[in-house]
Amino acid sequence: MKINTIEWKNNKIKLIDQTMLPHRLKYIYIDKLEDLWWAIKLLKVRGAPALGAAAALGVYLGIKDAQAKDFFPRLDKVASYIASSRPTARNLFWGIENICAVAKNNRSKDIPTLKKLLFAEACKTIETDKSGCRRMGKYGSKLIRDGDTVLTVCNAGILATIDYGTALGVLYRAKEEGKRIKVFSCETRPLLQGARLSAWELQKKGVQVTVICDNMAATLMRQGRINKVIAGADRIAANGDTANKIGTYTLAVLSKYHNIPFYIAAPVSTFDLAAQSGKDIPIEERGPREVTELLFQIKVAPSGAKVFNPAFDVTPHGLISAIITDKGIIRRPYKININKMLVRSLG
Amino acid sequence: MKINTIEWKNNKIKLIDQTMLPHRLKYIYIDKLEDLWWAIKLLKVRGAPALGAAAALGVYLGIKDAQAKDFFPRLDKVASYIASSRPTARNLFWGIENICAVAKNNRSKDIPTLKKLLFAEACKTIETDKSGCRRMGKYGSKLIRDGDTVLTVCNAGILATIDYGTALGVLYRAKEEGKRIKVFSCETRPLLQGARLSAWELQKKGVQVTVICDNMAATLMRQGRINKVIAGADRIAANGDTANKIGTYTLAVLSKYHNIPFYIAAPVSTFDLAAQSGKDIPIEERGPREVTELLFQIKVAPSGAKVFNPAFDVTPHGLISAIITDKGIIRRPYKININKMLVRSLG
Repeated sequence: MKINTIEWKNNKIKLIDQTMLPHRLKYIYIDKLEDLWWAIKLLKVRGAPALGAAAALGVYLGIKDAQAKDFFPRLDKVASYIASSRPTARNLFWGIENICAVAKNNRSKDIPTLKKLLFAEACKTIETDKSGCRRMGKYGSKLIRDGDTVLTVCNAGILATIDYGTALGVLYRAKEEGKRIKVFSCETRPLLQGARLSAWELQKKGVQVTVICDNMAATLMRQGRINKVIAGADRIAANGDTANKIGTYTLAVLSKYHNIPFYIAAPVSTFDLAAQSGKDIPIEERGPREVTELLFQIKVAPSGAKVFNPAFDVTPHGLISAIITDKGIIRRPYKININKMLVRSLG
Repeated sequence: MKINTIEWKNNKIKLIDQTMLPHRLKYIYIDKLEDLWWAIKLLKVRGAPALGAAAALGVYLGIKDAQAKDFFPRLDKVASYIASSRPTARNLFWGIENICAVAKNNRSKDIPTLKKLLFAEACKTIETDKSGCRRMGKYGSKLIRDGDTVLTVCNAGILATIDYGTALGVLYRAKEEGKRIKVFSCETRPLLQGARLSAWELQKKGVQVTVICDNMAATLMRQGRINKVIAGADRIAANGDTANKIGTYTLAVLSKYHNIPFYIAAPVSTFDLAAQSGKDIPIEERGPREVTELLFQIKVAPSGAKVFNPAFDVTPHGLISAIITDKGIIRRPYKININKMLVRSLG
């Protein structure tokens, strides 16, 4: 089964409305920038690499009908607007910056040519993700053994990218190589991407998956039933500290305690060398209703209950066994090796 | 506000239907043993000490109309039936065993007298819990400082006991002593006792409470915002290994990693000296729908998804800073000190 999380079609952004999964595979077509902003804000499209592509296509969507005299001011406005949707995933800003850089490097060109260049760059973002995830899968699969049971959190799969996945891409590749693997998927409160999205796509791909509540992972580890933990990333600092979906840090501490390898899988576009450490990564806090009302439908906490709802946490690099990227596997010392890898990938 | 989780009234067991909270404080009256079995199974009444009282009252309910010739066989049958409702909480069996022991120690008495003795014993279970929780609060409060922020899981409060609580009782006592405390309550998937029950009763008692998803506790700890963790218990083995609501073990590992004291609060009736270690504690696994359907109302996982749903986990004694009981605080070495405390309390 071929699933495309996001693509450009009929002059619109076509994407899967992920809030409807796993019950309904519904595509939406976006031709207004405001609709894209809300689709990102409401997690209809989510996952750092998918957000990178959505943002790049979004910039093009925002300027494709711009007049010549208005082009550059409009580009800046569009870029800032998309950037204001969600703060944590580095890829979203990377997607925007790439497009804007192409525009600025080609200032002398006429507007129709510029628009073509920007469209080509947005399409390249998509192709880069597709090929990058496959390379990441190939590198990462070396870490997975036949018979492994792997724990994952949130969704770092097809639905977080264009069509293959980062953490789950590694597992898909391992399966393609004939390795027999089982997956435990942490449901990932509050919005349950692990139960709704990862379980759905793992099933589609024929990988045996078992859903657990987030607080059950430790029991599985203690029983010796988990061989590896693998998670995606929303932003990786220069020293390897990694922001990812809330709950990832808990799994990293538990992995350390139970002596289980803990891997992060993310493309180089997730790295933010301007962030020296996790302290420099902005962490989105979302509204209380995600916690107090199950999927906005069943009220569970008493009225007026206070809530703390950070959407991400930071796993310090010391707890990460290796970072799997589209350029290869990065190991300790992270600061040095991340720098080498990123310089090489830009070279 | 005075709340009684469970009592004997008009020849019936009166209890709060905890599945209706926090929205509705609904009392149910039980006069059939089968209804009690289901109330326990479906968690209308839950919490180890409350289950002890429910079981004791249940045995009396089951034999109060028994004929003389049928009395002892009926007693055995009733005891086994109640014991088959849920396997983990030691107090449930303790409640049953206490009543049965009184019956067996008074075999020579006539049936009306026996019934009176059994009723008195069941009422004693309730009084023992009331006074025991208050003593536990007094002992435990010594560990709580003015200004502390305390993290808790599930519900070990009024609703898990008769009217005061174990872990939360300690906090209520600290508040009564004028200590300013704040509480973070882990929502406790799958059945959300932390969001539904603990937040509700902490609010009623005027304690400031903030609800978080279970996977957010680590972030609070890393930010230095948690001074103590305190949880209840369902069964404590001879060596101090403690079974409690799923997620407790995760908090214990996280507490160790972040150097935060981790306390268990439970009455002596929760100890099971026949269990040498946590390995000997039976852990209930519950049905998949608790995980795949939010409160049995919203389906979240794809059809056919496998589920692992243990209701409890075991925290090894090495991760427990102290065990607060109704007889005093137990510290390391647990095996020796638990034995001393329990022998003393029986003496």
